[in-house]
Amino acid sequence: MEFSSKLLENAVNEMSQLPGIGKRTALRLVLHMLKQPESRTKLLAEALLKMRTEVKFCKSCHNISDVEICEICSNKNRVSHTICVVEDVRDVMAIENTSSFKGIYHVLGGKISPMDGIGPHDLKIESLVEKVKQGEVKEIIFALSSTMEGDTTNFYIYKQIQDYNIVTSTIARGISVGDELEYADEITLGRSIVNRIPFESSLKS
Amino acid sequence: MEFSSKLLENAVNEMSQLPGIGKRTALRLVLHMLKQPESRTKLLAEALLKMRTEVKFCKSCHNISDVEICEICSNKNRVSHTICVVEDVRDVMAIENTSSFKGIYHVLGGKISPMDGIGPHDLKIESLVEKVKQGEVKEIIFALSSTMEGDTTNFYIYKQIQDYNIVTSTIARGISVGDELEYADEITLGRSIVNRIPFESSLKS
Repeated sequence: MEFSSKLLENAVNEMSQLPGIGKRTALRLVLHMLKQPESRTKLLAEALLKMRTEVKFCKSCHNISDVEICEICSNKNRVSHTICVVEDVRDVMAIENTSSFKGIYHVLGGKISPMDGIGPHDLKIESLVEKVKQGEVKEIIFALSSTMEGDTTNFYIYKQIQDYNIVTSTIARGISVGDELEYADEITLGRSIVNRIPFESSLKS
Repeated sequence: MEFSSKLLENAVNEMSQLPGIGKRTALRLVLHMLKQPESRTKLLAEALLKMRTEVKFCKSCHNISDVEICEICSNKNRVSHTICVVEDVRDVMAIENTSSFKGIYHVLGGKISPMDGIGPHDLKIESLVEKVKQGEVKEIIFALSSTMEGDTTNFYIYKQIQDYNIVTSTIARGISVGDELEYADEITLGRSIVNRIPFESSLKS
């Protein structure tokens, strides 16, 4: 791509550093900004910069927060001895949207993935184990994705907390509500039969 | 979507103003920035801001440029009496990549599109007609896309310059080089037969 302007080229290059944004998409976005008022680009640039420099992570659960201890952790109506372990902020948002969970979270910041050079010490695992050791926790719910990396991470944490007297569980895997059985993959369908639940309890939810 | 941080929410909202970027994609991009060093976000924000506030448009052809008259217009090796009329900067870049055009460009900045509220006066048509009136132009090549809007724009310009003694042409439409005839759409294939060219001239290019 040959640019008639260094400023344009530079903006496109920076934009295309973002994941999933190629040079062509970057050019389309940047040209769109040129058609919009200058103030729009200023607002965008300021919002990104302010977010990147000022955003905090909750000292307790490592969720993104504007304050030292996030709203969920500091909410006295939440059950603080039930901790849901998730990969990142998006998972917290997804579970919060369901309004089905009254405990608190622990955001690991990723999964153990040797292929990507992510080991246990790159994640916020120690602080979780520390909480368990101090007897603050009664139940831990693993809500990582059911991939090799997710399972490895679950197991790594489990090994370190299994000697403490706490309940551990993982979220249920099964056929999505509303899905047709014939289109479900075999592993999911198989698990949903093995891990079937009493009919009475299905009536409650 | 409920955010645990106002700063995050603001950044996602600004990001999702861009075309083709939804809230989920915006969140993914913003969370990626949080994993990268602060300097990356600074470089991005600065590049966008600098581009938006400092970029210029060539006074002659309206192409994006860092100087008053762009490199193409000020290049004395280009044939300045042959003008290729295009919609936007990307078209200039595409044609420049072919190295097949030695004339100069005129960037309209869009197409006449009453549906989108874009009339002739929103485009850089007057300055093109002015150039023709002053006798600077020998040939005009229309290279707009062959849509209703493109054809309307071509015709609107053509009506204003037809009384001056200049050659007008449009770029050839036909089957792409390397394409199979059986997969071509009928309009393109039909046109490529009607507008067939002497075999000898096909040998030259």
